Amino acid sequence: MQGTEPTPSQPAAYAPTDRTVPTRSPGRASYDRQTVHAILDEGYVCHLGFVRDGAPVVLPTLYGRVGERLYVHGSTGSRPLRMTGRTDPGLPVCLTVTHVDALVLARSAFHHSVNYRSVVVHGVAHDVTDPEEKRRALDALVDHVVPGRSRDSRPASRKELAATAVIRLDLDEVSAKLRTGGVNDEPEDLALPHWAGLLPLRKGYDAPVADPGLAPGTPLPDYLAAR
Amino acid sequence: MQGTEPTPSQPAAYAPTDRTVPTRSPGRASYDRQTVHAILDEGYVCHLGFVRDGAPVVLPTLYGRVGERLYVHGSTGSRPLRMTGRTDPGLPVCLTVTHVDALVLARSAFHHSVNYRSVVVHGVAHDVTDPEEKRRALDALVDHVVPGRSRDSRPASRKELAATAVIRLDLDEVSAKLRTGGVNDEPEDLALPHWAGLLPLRKGYDAPVADPGLAPGTPLPDYLAAR
Repeated sequence: MQGTEPTPSQPAAYAPTDRTVPTRSPGRASYDRQTVHAILDEGYVCHLGFVRDGAPVVLPTLYGRVGERLYVHGSTGSRPLRMTGRTDPGLPVCLTVTHVDALVLARSAFHHSVNYRSVVVHGVAHDVTDPEEKRRALDALVDHVVPGRSRDSRPASRKELAATAVIRLDLDEVSAKLRTGGVNDEPEDLALPHWAGLLPLRKGYDAPVADPGLAPGTPLPDYLAAR
Repeated sequence: MQGTEPTPSQPAAYAPTDRTVPTRSPGRASYDRQTVHAILDEGYVCHLGFVRDGAPVVLPTLYGRVGERLYVHGSTGSRPLRMTGRTDPGLPVCLTVTHVDALVLARSAFHHSVNYRSVVVHGVAHDVTDPEEKRRALDALVDHVVPGRSRDSRPASRKELAATAVIRLDLDEVSAKLRTGGVNDEPEDLALPHWAGLLPLRKGYDAPVADPGLAPGTPLPDYLAAR
């Protein structure tokens, strides 16, 4: 990941647009570039939406970020990637990344909520044809899953690169939305006997499970032991 | 959650359609009703896609299941809910739920993957106007977040119900997609020195954080202590 620090040519915030200003809870919205980058860099699965035959389609898929560009990859045979390649001016998409941080248990059913951080990117996806950009994009995808991993794996062969379609989406029309903090019950409910509070989601990973066919003596890399 | 067992009038599987048969990895697709229900019941955040001014929009939101119906709620002022209320024949949506179970680290960058279970529901969302159905839907939403919680919280008032819009989506055009198992490296890569295996995601919750204003002596309920 690169380009997290805004440069003089990059304003500190994305410009809000009609579709990135929420109709509800506008106080939860953020257009701050570093906030957006941090939410994107913490994840690796996004939900990609596109329109097919007039109806919406939402698919989970891996993504990576390089500066102000997001990349999504897939088989050259997969539907959105085929559609992008076919569509000359690109494919309108909406790419959403969501992290749930805690359940918010209120005394009232109505005020139950979750603490979350999400980023919604609107734009037009374009097929990546430049081999160097494609390779950088695929490295970024692998490094989103495990930072540093792309350098510790066999790089894609020419045949594998040819079988992989990569689409690019510029970070331009972007917003983050965050709910943080505690329970927002009504004052008249505070004395109710129901337990209220936060249930933070456990993050991280359990012990790695080595592939049974691992070459003898292959050590667990430091970047995995630390997780 | 109810209706997990198929009844004589419910076939054991959803009928595949053109848009629920994936173009890639069809072996990962499942139409089994109990598989679909189990994936849906394990989650509480979905990604809801709809079309606005011809472009896709994907928003994270809470959902609940009651039998063969999914419910999504929100303020009566929120965009998709307003659109549904306004649109007489309903709003075409795609609702997707994804659980990531493990990172799959292969020796080759190309075969990196994640083990996941997802459900994609295509259909038309309708505004729920019946007060009883609306109340059941909201209970289901709360119980998706924490099973049993709706009975241990103050039910929604008439005013809160009126401020909440609920939309319904029938489970009809539905598929699950699952990746399970280990690393799929090429035979010629097996002797490479890179560590390969699974990194299972940690699930569950950290210690509950009580609201500072909790009524003195309020115990942590058993259904939270056990998580």
